[in-house]
Amino acid sequence: MAKQIPWQERPAGSKEIMWRYDKNPVINRYDIPSSNSIFNSAVVPFKDGFAGVFRCDNRRVQMNIFAGFSDDGLNWRINPEPIDFKPFGDHFVHSDYKYDPRVTYLDGKYWITWCNGYHGPTIGVGFTEDFQTFYQCENALLPFNRNGVLFPAKIGGKYALLSRPSDNGHTPFGDIFLSFSPDMKFWGEHRHVMSPMPFEQSAWQCTKVGAGSVPILTEEGWLMFYHGVITTCNGYRYSMGAVLLDKDEPWKVLRRSKDYLLAPAAIYELTGDVPDVVFPCAALTEGDKVCVYYGAADTCVGIAFGKISEILDWLKKQ
Amino acid sequence: MAKQIPWQERPAGSKEIMWRYDKNPVINRYDIPSSNSIFNSAVVPFKDGFAGVFRCDNRRVQMNIFAGFSDDGLNWRINPEPIDFKPFGDHFVHSDYKYDPRVTYLDGKYWITWCNGYHGPTIGVGFTEDFQTFYQCENALLPFNRNGVLFPAKIGGKYALLSRPSDNGHTPFGDIFLSFSPDMKFWGEHRHVMSPMPFEQSAWQCTKVGAGSVPILTEEGWLMFYHGVITTCNGYRYSMGAVLLDKDEPWKVLRRSKDYLLAPAAIYELTGDVPDVVFPCAALTEGDKVCVYYGAADTCVGIAFGKISEILDWLKKQ
Amino acid sequence: MAKQIPWQERPAGSKEIMWRYDKNPVINRYDIPSSNSIFNSAVVPFKDGFAGVFRCDNRRVQMNIFAGFSDDGLNWRINPEPIDFKPFGDHFVHSDYKYDPRVTYLDGKYWITWCNGYHGPTIGVGFTEDFQTFYQCENALLPFNRNGVLFPAKIGGKYALLSRPSDNGHTPFGDIFLSFSPDMKFWGEHRHVMSPMPFEQSAWQCTKVGAGSVPILTEEGWLMFYHGVITTCNGYRYSMGAVLLDKDEPWKVLRRSKDYLLAPAAIYELTGDVPDVVFPCAALTEGDKVCVYYGAADTCVGIAFGKISEILDWLKKQ
Amino acid sequence: MAKQIPWQERPAGSKEIMWRYDKNPVINRYDIPSSNSIFNSAVVPFKDGFAGVFRCDNRRVQMNIFAGFSDDGLNWRINPEPIDFKPFGDHFVHSDYKYDPRVTYLDGKYWITWCNGYHGPTIGVGFTEDFQTFYQCENALLPFNRNGVLFPAKIGGKYALLSRPSDNGHTPFGDIFLSFSPDMKFWGEHRHVMSPMPFEQSAWQCTKVGAGSVPILTEEGWLMFYHGVITTCNGYRYSMGAVLLDKDEPWKVLRRSKDYLLAPAAIYELTGDVPDVVFPCAALTEGDKVCVYYGAADTCVGIAFGKISEILDWLKKQ
Amino acid sequence: MAKQIPWQERPAGSKEIMWRYDKNPVINRYDIPSSNSIFNSAVVPFKDGFAGVFRCDNRRVQMNIFAGFSDDGLNWRINPEPIDFKPFGDHFVHSDYKYDPRVTYLDGKYWITWCNGYHGPTIGVGFTEDFQTFYQCENALLPFNRNGVLFPAKIGGKYALLSRPSDNGHTPFGDIFLSFSPDMKFWGEHRHVMSPMPFEQSAWQCTKVGAGSVPILTEEGWLMFYHGVITTCNGYRYSMGAVLLDKDEPWKVLRRSKDYLLAPAAIYELTGDVPDVVFPCAALTEGDKVCVYYGAADTCVGIAFGKISEILDWLKKQ
Amino acid sequence: MAKQIPWQERPAGSKEIMWRYDKNPVINRYDIPSSNSIFNSAVVPFKDGFAGVFRCDNRRVQMNIFAGFSDDGLNWRINPEPIDFKPFGDHFVHSDYKYDPRVTYLDGKYWITWCNGYHGPTIGVGFTEDFQTFYQCENALLPFNRNGVLFPAKIGGKYALLSRPSDNGHTPFGDIFLSFSPDMKFWGEHRHVMSPMPFEQSAWQCTKVGAGSVPILTEEGWLMFYHGVITTCNGYRYSMGAVLLDKDEPWKVLRRSKDYLLAPAAIYELTGDVPDVVFPCAALTEGDKVCVYYGAADTCVGIAFGKISEILDWLKKQ
Repeated sequence: MAKQIPWQERPAGSKEIMWRYDKNPVINRYDIPSSNSIFNSAVVPFKDGFAGVFRCDNRRVQMNIFAGFSDDGLNWRINPEPIDFKPFGDHFVHSDYKYDPRVTYLDGKYWITWCNGYHGPTIGVGFTEDFQTFYQCENALLPFNRNGVLFPAKIGGKYALLSRPSDNGHTPFGDIFLSFSPDMKFWGEHRHVMSPMPFEQSAWQCTKVGAGSVPILTEEGWLMFYHGVITTCNGYRYSMGAVLLDKDEPWKVLRRSKDYLLAPAAIYELTGDVPDVVFPCAALTEGDKVCVYYGAADTCVGIAFGKISEILDWLKKQ
Repeated sequence: MAKQIPWQERPAGSKEIMWRYDKNPVINRYDIPSSNSIFNSAVVPFKDGFAGVFRCDNRRVQMNIFAGFSDDGLNWRINPEPIDFKPFGDHFVHSDYKYDPRVTYLDGKYWITWCNGYHGPTIGVGFTEDFQTFYQCENALLPFNRNGVLFPAKIGGKYALLSRPSDNGHTPFGDIFLSFSPDMKFWGEHRHVMSPMPFEQSAWQCTKVGAGSVPILTEEGWLMFYHGVITTCNGYRYSMGAVLLDKDEPWKVLRRSKDYLLAPAAIYELTGDVPDVVFPCAALTEGDKVCVYYGAADTCVGIAFGKISEILDWLKKQ
Repeated sequence: MAKQIPWQERPAGSKEIMWRYDKNPVINRYDIPSSNSIFNSAVVPFKDGFAGVFRCDNRRVQMNIFAGFSDDGLNWRINPEPIDFKPFGDHFVHSDYKYDPRVTYLDGKYWITWCNGYHGPTIGVGFTEDFQTFYQCENALLPFNRNGVLFPAKIGGKYALLSRPSDNGHTPFGDIFLSFSPDMKFWGEHRHVMSPMPFEQSAWQCTKVGAGSVPILTEEGWLMFYHGVITTCNGYRYSMGAVLLDKDEPWKVLRRSKDYLLAPAAIYELTGDVPDVVFPCAALTEGDKVCVYYGAADTCVGIAFGKISEILDWLKKQ
Repeated sequence: MAKQIPWQERPAGSKEIMWRYDKNPVINRYDIPSSNSIFNSAVVPFKDGFAGVFRCDNRRVQMNIFAGFSDDGLNWRINPEPIDFKPFGDHFVHSDYKYDPRVTYLDGKYWITWCNGYHGPTIGVGFTEDFQTFYQCENALLPFNRNGVLFPAKIGGKYALLSRPSDNGHTPFGDIFLSFSPDMKFWGEHRHVMSPMPFEQSAWQCTKVGAGSVPILTEEGWLMFYHGVITTCNGYRYSMGAVLLDKDEPWKVLRRSKDYLLAPAAIYELTGDVPDVVFPCAALTEGDKVCVYYGAADTCVGIAFGKISEILDWLKKQ
Repeated sequence: MAKQIPWQERPAGSKEIMWRYDKNPVINRYDIPSSNSIFNSAVVPFKDGFAGVFRCDNRRVQMNIFAGFSDDGLNWRINPEPIDFKPFGDHFVHSDYKYDPRVTYLDGKYWITWCNGYHGPTIGVGFTEDFQTFYQCENALLPFNRNGVLFPAKIGGKYALLSRPSDNGHTPFGDIFLSFSPDMKFWGEHRHVMSPMPFEQSAWQCTKVGAGSVPILTEEGWLMFYHGVITTCNGYRYSMGAVLLDKDEPWKVLRRSKDYLLAPAAIYELTGDVPDVVFPCAALTEGDKVCVYYGAADTCVGIAFGKISEILDWLKKQ
Repeated sequence: MAKQIPWQERPAGSKEIMWRYDKNPVINRYDIPSSNSIFNSAVVPFKDGFAGVFRCDNRRVQMNIFAGFSDDGLNWRINPEPIDFKPFGDHFVHSDYKYDPRVTYLDGKYWITWCNGYHGPTIGVGFTEDFQTFYQCENALLPFNRNGVLFPAKIGGKYALLSRPSDNGHTPFGDIFLSFSPDMKFWGEHRHVMSPMPFEQSAWQCTKVGAGSVPILTEEGWLMFYHGVITTCNGYRYSMGAVLLDKDEPWKVLRRSKDYLLAPAAIYELTGDVPDVVFPCAALTEGDKVCVYYGAADTCVGIAFGKISEILDWLKKQ
């Protein structure tokens, strides 16, 4: 991951741990012909540049995921047609809809996890090796579940998947759990990772929390960006925090943000299809630099920058 | 209706079926001295220009309807006082409030239908011949009902009224029905017309749908713009679609939009008294051109343009 | 109606205005082979005895209405199959379900009104002249509506129908309205009749009220038994009251019960498919005597007795 | 299973497919010293008689499961202390509470599945070989889930577990799913089995359905008793139906009851800690005879009898 | 309080800490001519016998409180008219309704506290010296509040009042607080006393708790019976527990029941206007004996017996 | 209060009773290093300039109050650390959080009232004489309460405190009450002041109302700015009105706005952490001029100007 990721230095005078790209949003709602909105999307280094899987809701507001490519991580060529998954082997696959993808590179494959419609939302799984041909596997878990994020390494010899069990609507609760699999097909050894925080301690994450980016391995453990939600009198507000998970037993939380790292404040985060949403789904790293991609107002994609060492230090103080 | 309606050509490069007027909103929230907001309003050709009935909520946020006039359909002179209806004949009339008017020209009269407060919202009916003197008739239907839209021709010799039965609050359901009357007083022969669509098929219209503009007779049937609603975690979002109803049996849906035609995306649609609302109430036509008037964010009035032939073609593909 | 109706004198020592039959319930939940429950049913004098239309939910808990006959009003022979309605003339008819019937004798016909499923509950209408052949007419009103009760005489030359507009669920509100029709097909001239009472004044009827029995013409006006509902922490409780409506303008309430006449207290009213329900649907009269048939706990049918003169006197004191 | 199970012949004159034991309830709420209620419990043949796992809520209304023994299936000796599970191998186990057990005999083990509290309700798994020593395994699934029922044979070489994904409260929805495992530890290949039925078709099961007894292998497929729920204005009512699943692909429903087999009607089903509940958790068979154990009113245990051949015939007619 | 209170010894074989009177209910729903129900009532020793203040809802289901007298605590003569309070001095008094009284003897006065309707429920206060003439004082607290219970002695020289702040409906939460007053008019020094318990620890009291009887001074502290509520899928269930409060700082909980002392199990507790309610409002003592009066199913009054020493011992074990 | 307050004349052509400062917001969300938002704050004249108490939510979205100072009322120096209250005398104090402060100068002290977290929100009380040292007193009232506003003079020799009893969430109701105290510690003589208005009369204040600024003594009575709330399909919208209370019996409303004075219309009021909020907390006066400080969108602070004489005249016309 020594590739050159999008980057801007911290603005003069700013003391923010993370700061926005000054040309946000990097992807706009109508950037492909069929789209109503493009948001909550995942990117990874790929070949000389970057590839990504993008949630593009169409004008029917049907949710689907699309492949896209970029040389610099800022200018994206998103395919006009959604990904056409083939069933993997004898796997049974079914998708009423697909949304909120994450992409994890592991063992030569780009694994895609997403919220998959099968009698309710659950965690869909697929992979590609070349971003041309895509295979869909069995759903990892039963409905109702969302925000499935796969670790980029096996833990204790097994695949490890974060998820947030849900209900069948706009779930007003939500903890992060971790499940393991020997084979990416059968899952078990479910562990509770973290809950919302009490209102008095950290209100922005008092309703629900969900995994965001693929965890980043640091010397101190797995660093992951996540979203937290507060319920105001006018609905949900989504913000971004970070958590450090134990390297070997990543259901153990070593440090966790009480402050948020990014909360809706820019006009493209405050207004759109769903006002007041910042929703991280991916992070690119280059040395100490990190660039987080996040959905804004369920409408477009923004990026924010930070330094891993600073984030880890900041987590120590929380 | 060969009068010159407001018009702008499709912007260069746009592939939209319908496009916004670039000087929207055409009516602003404070355009009469008493108003808090002016939206969800209806216009018709009248004499050399246009007349309209406007929903103007005052600073008490009391809802009432006002007459207005324009030479070009863009610049409006709205009366500062609400319409003063006289009871028609021995009709019993009562209005706790009036809102969301539609205007239908039929048999020499401009019929006005609106949401009328009588122990809950229901469909009020009145008419004028000159936009000076207005008569109010019996309510067509029992509460709880909204979005009453009268056809501009008798169907099978009877008046035909679309409506959307509701509850007494922010109704989370809503189908469009059609009722008939021999005399504009007694109504029956109620027919179901259309329901919301399943979330997976067309999410923007999965919570409720309601008739919008007065249907336009085309060679292929009645073309009507309607609104559809989705429930997000932050409330309702209102968008606009179109439907083609059978000419003689207009409770039969021939074609219906799965894509929306217009959804909240401009700042005056995304912010205001109720964010994320596009709510069509009237359409002017001139040959193949159509100009739709819609309420934006429950705050102001915008217009959008299209070509009937293109909309009909587009409906065929849906 | 000089026929001998079911009757028992007021129990010794009782000061109740109305009192229960001591062999209640007169109809039990399994009285026909297919039934899960028989309740909320209507009876009328017929030939030498009585006939009735009964709500019998089957073991699928599908709701339908059945004809039945009795010599004495106490022992009933209910047909094992539901009423097979023929469409009347060119009337469009559709029933997803039928429940809570009332029967009104008028102009040589026994009119049946019920809650009819057509894209939600509304008021179904039919008639028979002989309780052998039944005709179904157009629905009188749009959904969502329940508790349609037809007056047994024309008012001002028109048919008059009470109803209670509702929502699509367990409606937590409900007023009684009156609608008129020249022809039993088209309805209008809708009038509000009565609302729930404030909790502080008469709590048993503070959530909703609905017409019960067919109104009885007395010298002082139309006497009608109705149900009122209170919302406790454990759900709805249904009780019975009475109201006197103006003879010529029956949307005007002359007197109305603040006390209830009958509220759930017997074990067959307190327990069953829905605990705590007393729901009147019919009344037989013989001189000053009245015998009210009511559904108990949504499970069976009970009867209660009273004297019209006493009820009218009692209403004067309320 | 040729043991003599509890049995009474169908009462004279009855046409019921299943009928109650006339001395119900067989287990009463206070049958062990600490209990507030004993219900929703499972029994199996064991040695010369029967053993069972019982849900006994204590006077704190804490939920736990207890072993018990009986010679005749009617008179039970329930241990006064809850089952003391040992962790199986290196399995991680945690139980905030345990309720609604089922017991499946398979491969020499009595497998117990129950609703287990681990950051919400999910499916706990354990086993015993002698009803003296019990081992608890990893939870099969993530929260939120209830009504886990294990098949008594491997399907396609794998363990097969029915469950009903839920939310974290009194879930107002619920479908039955099937999951597979090669090893009773990791689960996948999740299949949808059946949903609630539409209100118009079979109202008693229109809110949610959940697996009840361990499926019984018949020549025609797997016969399973399940519960269905309707939401009345006073809450949930639980009834019992039956379903026939394909022998080899048991996620395929061959036949399913539209009528219920048993619904609350006896006083011990209509009143108790939760009125109007019939909740099957186990079935004993002896030749063609079947005896179903069900929780009544969340308070006590009743049994009902039937003949498998008759139930299968009845299912054909549904 | 050496008067002879109602009493029965513990039934043979029973190990219950408290047990019911075998002739319950001692007061029935229709025991005065106007009543719909008599429940949630308070009694005290008075002259040679007992006096009480009774909640009698009338046939309008209006709530009011009535005085009554008894020689033996079992047979009661309740006045047919509600208490006619005179304003005390210049106190402002207003009552839309009165319910759930408690009576505390202190400083020669019988203080009555009740739930008083003044723009919502709050704590009404009055007193009598002879149960003939009654005075009403200022409301102690603002709405919304219920279950006000006055200590029978001053604490630190001040009056001490328990209460349970509420909302304006069927409050789904509720803690017990303590407030102090130098003069029974102005209240402050509010202290939190106790909250509901977590579901896993003591589910019968997991939704809300409220003070019940007037605290009884024992050598170990103030013993008080209270109610706790659980929310089942069919509504609230009310049970009774006990708590021991510090003698001098009675906002400190010394011991508290995890088991309940009495929960709905008798038919008059399981069925009635609100099923599944046991609601203590008063306790009489005689030496070690205690007799608790409780409302049953919001319909009638039952009593239960126990021994104070045994209850205190039992609390030690909780 | 003859100090020079912030001021701009009414814009040319405007007929508004009150108008916004053209450089709003005067305080921005990030104006102190730790803040997420600064809003709902109170200012008073102090020494040569002004002092204030500010609600600054930090990046954990924990709510606390901070002191600040200004020479001109426009440019503020807010302390970076929250106010560190010392307990006053033997008063018991506890704060899970503090928000929405008001400041009242009375008897040489600056009294601060706020929403204080003590087992739910209630009215916290404190004071300072120099804005350096702050003392916290006992909470005035029990939870659940918000919007406590102290009169700047004793009424009838007693302290007088407005408040709005609430529930424990986003309370959907709310009246203003007045309570009295001889000593700022014990409170009683609670009086109802005003309720929301019926939807048909003044919809912007139909859900709840709460006291805003400290009342201003005029010759005609106490003038107070308050907030009113309407519930739209997308949540709450907060606007500002004014009320004139009787000088000597300030629970009597002499005149009250039906029109609002200010409702969300500027972009900083329409977008932010909670869209569509205008929430007044303080007013400065200078002769006939008044400058109201209000929270905007729960994010920042705006000011609006008016003339007291004009507001009083306007109230006369309402």
